[in-house]
Amino acid sequence: MRAARYHDRGDIRIEQIDEPELLPGAVGIDVAWCGICGTDLHEYAEGPIFVPPEGHPQPISGESAPITLGHEMSGTVYAVGAGVDDLAVGDHVVVEPYIIRDDVDTGPQSHDYHLSPDMNFIGLGGRGGGLGERIVVRRRWVHRIADSVPLDQAALIEPLAVGVHAVERSGATAGDVALITGAGPIGLLTAAVCRARGITTVISEPSSLRRQKAIDSGVTEHVVDPTTEDAVARVRDLTDGRGAHVGFECTSVQPALDTLVDAVRPTAVIVVVSIWGHPATLDMQKIVLKEIDLRGTIAYVNSHPEAIALVEEGRVDLAPFITGRIGLDHLIDEGFETLIHRNETAVKILVSPSGAGLTEG
Amino acid sequence: MRAARYHDRGDIRIEQIDEPELLPGAVGIDVAWCGICGTDLHEYAEGPIFVPPEGHPQPISGESAPITLGHEMSGTVYAVGAGVDDLAVGDHVVVEPYIIRDDVDTGPQSHDYHLSPDMNFIGLGGRGGGLGERIVVRRRWVHRIADSVPLDQAALIEPLAVGVHAVERSGATAGDVALITGAGPIGLLTAAVCRARGITTVISEPSSLRRQKAIDSGVTEHVVDPTTEDAVARVRDLTDGRGAHVGFECTSVQPALDTLVDAVRPTAVIVVVSIWGHPATLDMQKIVLKEIDLRGTIAYVNSHPEAIALVEEGRVDLAPFITGRIGLDHLIDEGFETLIHRNETAVKILVSPSGAGLTEG
Ligand SMILES: [Zn+2]
Ligand SMILES: [Zn+2]
Repeated sequence: MRAARYHDRGDIRIEQIDEPELLPGAVGIDVAWCGICGTDLHEYAEGPIFVPPEGHPQPISGESAPITLGHEMSGTVYAVGAGVDDLAVGDHVVVEPYIIRDDVDTGPQSHDYHLSPDMNFIGLGGRGGGLGERIVVRRRWVHRIADSVPLDQAALIEPLAVGVHAVERSGATAGDVALITGAGPIGLLTAAVCRARGITTVISEPSSLRRQKAIDSGVTEHVVDPTTEDAVARVRDLTDGRGAHVGFECTSVQPALDTLVDAVRPTAVIVVVSIWGHPATLDMQKIVLKEIDLRGTIAYVNSHPEAIALVEEGRVDLAPFITGRIGLDHLIDEGFETLIHRNETAVKILVSPSGAGLTEG
Repeated sequence: MRAARYHDRGDIRIEQIDEPELLPGAVGIDVAWCGICGTDLHEYAEGPIFVPPEGHPQPISGESAPITLGHEMSGTVYAVGAGVDDLAVGDHVVVEPYIIRDDVDTGPQSHDYHLSPDMNFIGLGGRGGGLGERIVVRRRWVHRIADSVPLDQAALIEPLAVGVHAVERSGATAGDVALITGAGPIGLLTAAVCRARGITTVISEPSSLRRQKAIDSGVTEHVVDPTTEDAVARVRDLTDGRGAHVGFECTSVQPALDTLVDAVRPTAVIVVVSIWGHPATLDMQKIVLKEIDLRGTIAYVNSHPEAIALVEEGRVDLAPFITGRIGLDHLIDEGFETLIHRNETAVKILVSPSGAGLTEG
């Protein structure tokens, strides 16, 4: 079968590889669609980061580059391994792409399996990837979805789960007002979760195209251009002068963090969703005098069930965020290059590893 | 009566002033002891900060410099105003020294009255101070204490309440391990609250005299010199390699913050108790990848009842933290100057405004 494999920085190859072996307790999936993630772009441009380099096998998977990429995937079950009796061939599924040690509690009550030692992601740290035609995934990490959810939208459930977890971390509830800095994919999907939960959002985003996308996708009515408008004042207008209940930092940019610290009310929570490649400067006096909680959030933990429910129940519409569909052959020139150079209009580009999705549509 | 009044930076005078007028709903208190706080030192050396300068009256109290100082006080009720029927002359009391707008909910369920607009402190923003012989305080801010609590120790209940609130903010529970950076008064009192709650503490403190004080006062068995020892490793040793459950930043020093970020386990809480006069640098990648909560905390909010209970029940012994007793005449030369220049051995210096406490002892 064909797959996109990461060899090294700037070196991703579309190669012919063996089909994955079906294992007991695992599920064989024909990948329908796989989204390209900012993490994939970082691996391409600046990596290897999550990908274990050749000679340095990932401690859990035991694999190293070349590694099949892709962790935002949907598909159809083509086979189930011994002992799997609650999924059947033909079921539609998405993958929660974790590589986690066997001795970690990954049960439904766990809130920290995603922070366990040596954690990595399927599609970055080994165990196949969504940018291959087929993948075999342990049952624990396969989530069934209703047939009513289109498989292309289902590929966005993984980044939606990031938003679900971020909103969980914030503690925000219906009626609250949230300021979100950044209308990239994660900012938009966090806003979508907020909307579904009755949380009003203001999105601060310097790109007019991205602001327009935020409005057009229906996730918010309130966008602010931080280069010409006062986001803090806009938030105050919506909150009787008291400030936002929560903030979501989705930019990795210092002025965005400063704005959030000023825009939130006392005892507010600021969730940092973006991964910063550089240290932040924090006005600690404001953090103390307003008793702000600054909370990091990474990925998801038992968040897929809610993300799936939001989509199945029609409370989040993922269709507006799909801005491109390509085959494996155009992964770099139409996929990665578009996201790196034209990322104001591109939100999520989906890849059909087999090409089947492209001809059907 | 005599009182220490703040006129301007470097200008604190012991003056003869009128006795305060007893008001309806208020309580007249003969001050027994008043502690000197780091905040007072800041006002003296760098202020006015909390003190409203002449011509700029505090919005709630309407007062401006000169202002009577002192907010860490204990005393005996000498009169009660009309409508006060649950306190009697002779009762021992401490003051929760807030100046808060009348329209703010300060009820027992409030968790944020201390963050309300224009909040200030008695003894900094007006309404008298503990560095005067007598003070009249609204009933809401007067807390009765058992006669069994010595009035000198009772003067430390205010800073102990800071520790109570900081530990509340941390969410730490019995059996947890906390790293505390700094063994100044707030670090020590936070450790005392942790001990009373069954939380094991490690205190990182470069001063050997302060480390010794931490041991001698009985608040911890674990001290680390960060200039020669690895605080992160020490914490790991105590936690099966997993890191501290919580951290308390009580230094305003960058390396302490960095140590805490490294020393805590995933999903841990770091409470910033100290007021930083400068921005902090924060390794946001660690905050995100460990899902750390960084929480500011300031003063106290409905924390006095627990602080008082800890002392009344003998679960916290405040005696070891009293390192000096002086009269008003020596406030600057023996009080402020000692704390500014010999603060490794001085923890809390108490002032007897009338001098009565000095002759009795
Ligand atoms: Zn991703
Ligand atoms: Zn104080």
